[in-house]
Amino acid sequence: MPIPDAQIHPEATGAAAKTVAAHKDKNNAALTFYSGWFCPYVQRVWLALEEKGIPYYYEEINPYHKDEYLKINPKGLVPAIRSDGVNIYESHILNEFLEDKFPQSKRLLPERAEQKAVARIQMDLVTKKIIPAYFRCVQSQDVEGQKAARKEMYDACREFGTFIDSSKGPFVGGKELDGVDIALAPWAVRQWVLDEHRGGPATEAECGQAYVKWAKAVQSHPTVLKTTSDREHYVPIYQRYLKDEAQSEAAKATRAGKVIP
Amino acid sequence: MPIPDAQIHPEATGAAAKTVAAHKDKNNAALTFYSGWFCPYVQRVWLALEEKGIPYYYEEINPYHKDEYLKINPKGLVPAIRSDGVNIYESHILNEFLEDKFPQSKRLLPERAEQKAVARIQMDLVTKKIIPAYFRCVQSQDVEGQKAARKEMYDACREFGTFIDSSKGPFVGGKELDGVDIALAPWAVRQWVLDEHRGGPATEAECGQAYVKWAKAVQSHPTVLKTTSDREHYVPIYQRYLKDEAQSEAAKATRAGKVIP
Repeated sequence: MPIPDAQIHPEATGAAAKTVAAHKDKNNAALTFYSGWFCPYVQRVWLALEEKGIPYYYEEINPYHKDEYLKINPKGLVPAIRSDGVNIYESHILNEFLEDKFPQSKRLLPERAEQKAVARIQMDLVTKKIIPAYFRCVQSQDVEGQKAARKEMYDACREFGTFIDSSKGPFVGGKELDGVDIALAPWAVRQWVLDEHRGGPATEAECGQAYVKWAKAVQSHPTVLKTTSDREHYVPIYQRYLKDEAQSEAAKATRAGKVIP
Repeated sequence: MPIPDAQIHPEATGAAAKTVAAHKDKNNAALTFYSGWFCPYVQRVWLALEEKGIPYYYEEINPYHKDEYLKINPKGLVPAIRSDGVNIYESHILNEFLEDKFPQSKRLLPERAEQKAVARIQMDLVTKKIIPAYFRCVQSQDVEGQKAARKEMYDACREFGTFIDSSKGPFVGGKELDGVDIALAPWAVRQWVLDEHRGGPATEAECGQAYVKWAKAVQSHPTVLKTTSDREHYVPIYQRYLKDEAQSEAAKATRAGKVIP
């Protein structure tokens, strides 16, 4: 019997399909970007590539049909990048790599060492608190578990909101998306899953005004839109998460109560 | 009733006490290092400071008597660094910060962007697989759980061993400790807890020759020795871990099956 997740739509659609089409020229690419159009971790790196204006070659990987791809990433996960003969993976490591490799392009992290460290502490909140709570909320099969995870997530989102200077916002970096925004942006894009299935839209009472404004600004940001596919193709994927049947590594780790790999 | 962990020995002893004594001059320090002498995450940063030869002011914090310290790190955890008026924490973020802030000192991570990313992938294995398994093995109260965690840990240590070029070893970086070695070194220092209480010394059969050689070389490295206190003062601390009564954040997260914060 095939793994059900192997049935996902095979490629990007809508605005994201246009972005893919503009990145199929191997000869003018600085690197190869191994992607899965639906994956939030992929979108983190995709946003960084687009914001920095790096010429990349886009390659779609179905991570559930991945035998060949294991040569690039032995974990079999997207995203990955092949640069100068070296295979690199893990979304937060990839975005640090893009900063190191392309220092002349738009910077997504502060240059001053202390401020760069503060940005990393902020991204750590996203990775350690917000994202695991998001998956727990979506995958939990009982209302109490969903409520507890939603509260945990939106409490952390309120803390994220404190990173934003309200006189400069809506983003952490002011008017422009920066690396801290990008670390969380893909989950703001996927907030509709919670809005529609896990307790309704996020309110200012639960996650604070700054976060609500931030999420709205992220959801309509041009670079976010051009890396997002048509909603209808995400729906069957998230229906599997909502029934706790998804087979991604994030889904399996959440189910087992383990660290997302 | 006092929190039992508050009873830990209040300061470094032995070789580590001498190192502390050599770093109590505020006027000639580039930064303040907030430490807890017994903490493995602290030792990660301490090793980097010593290897890089950065002039630091050492301040001992008892994280169980920490009201004042919450101004430095709102999580209340050591290690932390105060540099140029900014408070920074999280051991892996601190070691990245030291690389960024002091580029003229001995480099602990590769300069080439691709190789730096590979080093970060290797450090990610330590943080996500080896360390959580270490704490699970020590804190587990049933033999099956201990065995499973030990296997998980030493399987990952075997993978760590593959990062070492046997013609250049014993360390990942060759003859000198580098950032990848430092990420794991404090748990090699604390391997005696497993050796004595959780199934005996690590064998080549379970964790591979390269790792066994690496661990031995780490345990006798001069910088490791000068940041390690007398064994007798670690014993009561690890006795609490072995009974699963420790109250550190790592211990509590492990007990709850959550990500170590």
